[in-house]
Amino acid sequence: MSVLDELTASLPDGVVVTDPVLTDKYRFDRAADPGAGTPLAVVRAMSTEQVQTALRWASEHRVAVVPRGAGTGLSGGSTALTGGIVLSTERMRDIAIDRLSRVAVVQPGLLNAEVKQAAAEAGLWYPPDPSSFEICSIGGNVATNAGGLCCVKYGVTSDYVLALEVVLADGRALRLGGPRLKDSAGLSLTKLFVGSEGTLGVVTEVTLRLMPPQPPPRTVVATFADTHAATEAIVAITSTLRPAMLEYMDRTTVNAVEDHLRMGLDRSAAALIVARTDTEGSTADRELAQMVAAFERCGAGEVVSTDDPAEGEAFTLARRQAIPAMEKKGKLLLEDVGVAVPRLPALVSGIEAIAAARDVTIALIAHAGDGNTHPLIVFDPADARAAQRAQTAFGEVMDLAIELDGTITGEHGVGRLKQPWLAAQVGDDVIDLSRRIKAAIDPLGIMNPGAVL
Amino acid sequence: MSVLDELTASLPDGVVVTDPVLTDKYRFDRAADPGAGTPLAVVRAMSTEQVQTALRWASEHRVAVVPRGAGTGLSGGSTALTGGIVLSTERMRDIAIDRLSRVAVVQPGLLNAEVKQAAAEAGLWYPPDPSSFEICSIGGNVATNAGGLCCVKYGVTSDYVLALEVVLADGRALRLGGPRLKDSAGLSLTKLFVGSEGTLGVVTEVTLRLMPPQPPPRTVVATFADTHAATEAIVAITSTLRPAMLEYMDRTTVNAVEDHLRMGLDRSAAALIVARTDTEGSTADRELAQMVAAFERCGAGEVVSTDDPAEGEAFTLARRQAIPAMEKKGKLLLEDVGVAVPRLPALVSGIEAIAAARDVTIALIAHAGDGNTHPLIVFDPADARAAQRAQTAFGEVMDLAIELDGTITGEHGVGRLKQPWLAAQVGDDVIDLSRRIKAAIDPLGIMNPGAVL
Ligand SMILES: Cc1cc2nc3c(=O)[nH]c(=O)nc-3n(C[C@H](O)[C@H](O)[C@H](O)COP(=O)(O)OP(=O)(O)OC[C@H]3O[C@@H](n4cnc5c(N)ncnc54)[C@H](O)[C@@H]3O)c2cc1C
Ligand SMILES: Cc1cc2nc3c(=O)[nH]c(=O)nc-3n(C[C@H](O)[C@H](O)[C@H](O)COP(=O)(O)OP(=O)(O)OC[C@H]3O[C@@H](n4cnc5c(N)ncnc54)[C@H](O)[C@@H]3O)c2cc1C
Repeated sequence: MSVLDELTASLPDGVVVTDPVLTDKYRFDRAADPGAGTPLAVVRAMSTEQVQTALRWASEHRVAVVPRGAGTGLSGGSTALTGGIVLSTERMRDIAIDRLSRVAVVQPGLLNAEVKQAAAEAGLWYPPDPSSFEICSIGGNVATNAGGLCCVKYGVTSDYVLALEVVLADGRALRLGGPRLKDSAGLSLTKLFVGSEGTLGVVTEVTLRLMPPQPPPRTVVATFADTHAATEAIVAITSTLRPAMLEYMDRTTVNAVEDHLRMGLDRSAAALIVARTDTEGSTADRELAQMVAAFERCGAGEVVSTDDPAEGEAFTLARRQAIPAMEKKGKLLLEDVGVAVPRLPALVSGIEAIAAARDVTIALIAHAGDGNTHPLIVFDPADARAAQRAQTAFGEVMDLAIELDGTITGEHGVGRLKQPWLAAQVGDDVIDLSRRIKAAIDPLGIMNPGAVL
Repeated sequence: MSVLDELTASLPDGVVVTDPVLTDKYRFDRAADPGAGTPLAVVRAMSTEQVQTALRWASEHRVAVVPRGAGTGLSGGSTALTGGIVLSTERMRDIAIDRLSRVAVVQPGLLNAEVKQAAAEAGLWYPPDPSSFEICSIGGNVATNAGGLCCVKYGVTSDYVLALEVVLADGRALRLGGPRLKDSAGLSLTKLFVGSEGTLGVVTEVTLRLMPPQPPPRTVVATFADTHAATEAIVAITSTLRPAMLEYMDRTTVNAVEDHLRMGLDRSAAALIVARTDTEGSTADRELAQMVAAFERCGAGEVVSTDDPAEGEAFTLARRQAIPAMEKKGKLLLEDVGVAVPRLPALVSGIEAIAAARDVTIALIAHAGDGNTHPLIVFDPADARAAQRAQTAFGEVMDLAIELDGTITGEHGVGRLKQPWLAAQVGDDVIDLSRRIKAAIDPLGIMNPGAVL
């Protein structure tokens, strides 16, 4: 019996998939890394026990394991490895909600939107809202510490994870944390596993904190004739109040979205900002007025406020569709650099300078209120020289973020594509410490090798 | 030259203290563990470099290091060890605030109240507010992941730590995280060090996220004739809204505080709840009305609301003085058990049953909105049998919390006094994993040995 037959025999029919037509769909994440390998097999686990069986087998035979949620990642974190297996959690989809304690216990394969929906049905709210919320899994969100549009006020995935069940490389299943809201017992392993991108183990269950429903938001949209003024407005707002959303799109993305959705956005604006408050009554009036004043002081063109949730949602949808709209324009290199908000103007103008110097198009969207930007480098993949220049710019953008005391990734994770830049950001001592911790948890190094570290 | 002389010689005058009259003050934290040892010396470092020098020396000579902030800890985490050194950060007291990015960079020795004050002077707010905020250090807060009264809405220390500088056992100084609000680059080492109680290294600088000022709070106070009704009211409130404070005191503590402060609290009440909203206008009206309705539905005696900040603050002060007031009543064993809020009624009645069965007084205060209680076991230290019964009850309260899927410590940390119970809560596999991580970071095991693990 071959090593792979052993795995197939130890799991129910259909769990281990080896048909190349099927396994091909698990080779890439949304970053479409051309260096993706061809996996031995895809394990589509249906339970924690099946994950344990697969990992015990992988440990015994020293087979690399790439955990995979919905494959919407933007940094090559779930890119398949030749000779390894892909461990997909897409079929682990249970959820249970406890209204009284405002907690959801979720298996990793459920989509973010499905968690939100189940919470809403129980009269509750799960805040984290990556733009990809309809297509990404909650396990992937935990593994990347996903952010989103409401993070500027409500925090990232990590802030909602009370407990995890994880399966380690050796097949042991561990429970970290618990349903209580505060816990100082022992090292914060729960928080260590959040954002570990599949390098420490497989997340097989997540206990999430839920919130009472969000009050209806009020939205204000502003256009700017130059990007510097727009970023100054962001700084002015975040230094004095906490909006429930503060998103940014530049001219290139506005036009791509307009091509895609035809909703009447101002194609001539250099930048468009969508801001929200979800406070109520006089507080909302005050916050809206403060935001409008900041926009006007910074020289906004048009400033439009709306209390109509549908109208506000249309602008949010426009922002969320920016990546898919840009994907139609060519091949993308997606960045995720972040800085302290006051450095946003310097980051944005620096990126514009890189685009000019390298003669590449860099569209820019941003969860601007967090200082987290997504420069999207677009190029024609058929043009080898353009592809080369795009790749150079990709690195230069990260170098710039590091220079500005920022991060190479605010929410997408390091994956494989940003791994070469991590040491420059965090320093060799932090890399060394991280490697020692990784080795303590995964001594054989079979969990997502090549990602992050 | 003796080993200790070597240390003294390598640091400026006055940094290494060996006079027993002085070092005696560094033997105990506020838990006053009778098992405290007598340290070789106290190193009162004034800079990161001096901490590095001390740790390099300690590594070379395999000397145990007990990091110490202000010594207000309640679990014996900074209890001195015979033959070890105490590394005090009390003289590292710089702070710099950046208004635009709403961030404070603080040395560990500054008191929490001083951080709050400096933030307030810059027109900003540092939320975490342990009851001990006037006497505990920010380094100690980070090391224990301290909570407090506003955590129920605003989260714990960990939620405000953007970056740390830490010195490892081998003397290396590392920077973890940075001033940006979102960061998914690499393993979350910042979060791992928060709450590590000095077992992984010494925190020498903290970068804290600040908030715009809190709107003036409105307070509502309710008394109850029985504790069960009071805890049911807590559950009713937290399942539908997010108060800015939700604190609980039982009859024993109300009476102790009344003896101490003479402010006219109702000595006959079985329980008193102090609740707050810091929303504004109609939202505040609605939240107050919801809280009042919940209190009344659950059978409250008196329910009093006030918009007067001074009056509201008086009740908060009463709650904050509960531990000092109880300390006058005898020797205390301080607990910090927490459960999911819906289990609070079961926890509180279970603790009452333990008090009755063991014939000991257990006073109870709680950050009730988080499900985090502080049972205070009071006894006469001269009565050996009573002390023995108190010790038995101390363990039984933690066993009960574990049974209820809760935690032995919500915010004070495990320290030395709760260490024997940790494995029962988290399980042997988690202990094993924690030990492996600890060994990866502190291979010689010199950092706060005996605490936590
Ligand atoms: C149009 C678009 C918009 C996006 N917008 C945002 C945004 O606003 N904010 C944001 O944060 N991200 C965004 N993303 C990126 C992506 O959706 C997130 O990173 C998401 O969290 C990935 O989830 P996934 O289930 O697709 O994970 P995958 O892509 O399958 O995996 C991502 C990483 O997590 C690991 N992993 C997945 N599941 C597990 C598990 N159960 N256990 C252990 N490791 C696991 C993988 O190994 C990999 O390293 C966007 C993506 C797209 C395509
Ligand atoms: C009256 C009273 C009320 C209290 N109320 C609360 C409350 O509401 N919420 C709450 O959370 N706590 C409360 N506490 C407990 C205590 O104040 C907190 O645990 C506080 O965070 C301890 O800070 P400290 O500076 O006194 O630390 P210490 O007691 O000196 O040390 C505590 C732990 O942290 C470690 N440590 C200290 N500084 C460092 C450093 N720089 N680097 C690494 N490790 C370090 C120590 O080794 C030890 O393990 C209360 C205490 C008292 C006396």
